[in-house]
Amino acid sequence: MPNPIEFYFDFSSPYSYLASEKIEALAARHGRRVQYKPILLGAAFQVAGTRPLVDIPLKGEYSKRDLVRSARFEGVPFALPQPFPVATVGAARAHLWLSDRDPARAQAFVHAAFRAYFAQGRNIAQSDVLEQVLREVGADPTEVLPAIQQPAIKERLRAQVDEALARGVFGAPFMFVDGEPFWGHDRMPQVERWLAEGPF
Amino acid sequence: MPNPIEFYFDFSSPYSYLASEKIEALAARHGRRVQYKPILLGAAFQVAGTRPLVDIPLKGEYSKRDLVRSARFEGVPFALPQPFPVATVGAARAHLWLSDRDPARAQAFVHAAFRAYFAQGRNIAQSDVLEQVLREVGADPTEVLPAIQQPAIKERLRAQVDEALARGVFGAPFMFVDGEPFWGHDRMPQVERWLAEGPF
Repeated sequence: MPNPIEFYFDFSSPYSYLASEKIEALAARHGRRVQYKPILLGAAFQVAGTRPLVDIPLKGEYSKRDLVRSARFEGVPFALPQPFPVATVGAARAHLWLSDRDPARAQAFVHAAFRAYFAQGRNIAQSDVLEQVLREVGADPTEVLPAIQQPAIKERLRAQVDEALARGVFGAPFMFVDGEPFWGHDRMPQVERWLAEGPF
Repeated sequence: MPNPIEFYFDFSSPYSYLASEKIEALAARHGRRVQYKPILLGAAFQVAGTRPLVDIPLKGEYSKRDLVRSARFEGVPFALPQPFPVATVGAARAHLWLSDRDPARAQAFVHAAFRAYFAQGRNIAQSDVLEQVLREVGADPTEVLPAIQQPAIKERLRAQVDEALARGVFGAPFMFVDGEPFWGHDRMPQVERWLAEGPF
């Protein structure tokens, strides 16, 4: 069984959303699957000394334009939500909890949460929205929401963030293909060639 | 006559070098030409509060790997030079001086200077190297090198940098197609579609 594509992301990262809409089909074309690994980008930004894109002078203004254009380029429904960015610790923990129990549902949750926020403008940082999204993928919020307040799942997420930092993750999406790092949805053509032809 | 693709760059920007090896063929496929506009990225970094890529923790290490891989992906000869980055004010002024007198030679100079630095490891900040590169494109260094110390050409470069900042340029390569901004060599697929099909 070949290694999965490891896909580190933050639920509040719009370029991660764009990539998430394409990466499974790309992986499948080469007999791979995708292992989603949500992290909290704020921790990575602290290490790298960077900031959320939209807060940076000039770059922030351009990024908003680039995002909507890139979404049209990819054919992915997108509208920059307000507020942006939002806290995604709840969504990330919910994903971890689901992935321990039902990987297919966890994968469906990635897409449902991303689309709720970036296509439908629903604030996934709010517990009522998170509750709805969990229901949409057939999970029981009365089971998940209390569980993600437990120390064990909090520790799992901390460990996943630490693992990402230790592997050099500083932004999102950040993908590893057989250990090779690729940052950004715009590296997907390189990911595809790497999968098709091997290291270049 | 359709508008040229405006191509803002710094002679010390490796992703600009990669793009410069492809942009003219891309433009020609759509009946366009390329207008090269060298700037000094340091000024843009000050406005945007950013730093040279390789100086940023985590991101810097990744960037070195991404650069050599991206060059292989594009089939462009590349080796990260030492020292890096270097001062490019001389090369930028020489380009401006040439472009006022002989646009074809100015264009040849862009490629000769980029290749000298990023493919051949020659430090274009050194005046003897700049002199050689000028000779390689058939320019007379005894005419160009004194001329680029004159106030008029210094002012021209300052104005070009100010123009870039006023248009929101914060990195390189930064391209405008009929006013639409595209940042990064990885936006060339979007540039190509914009040229082929119009705004999307």
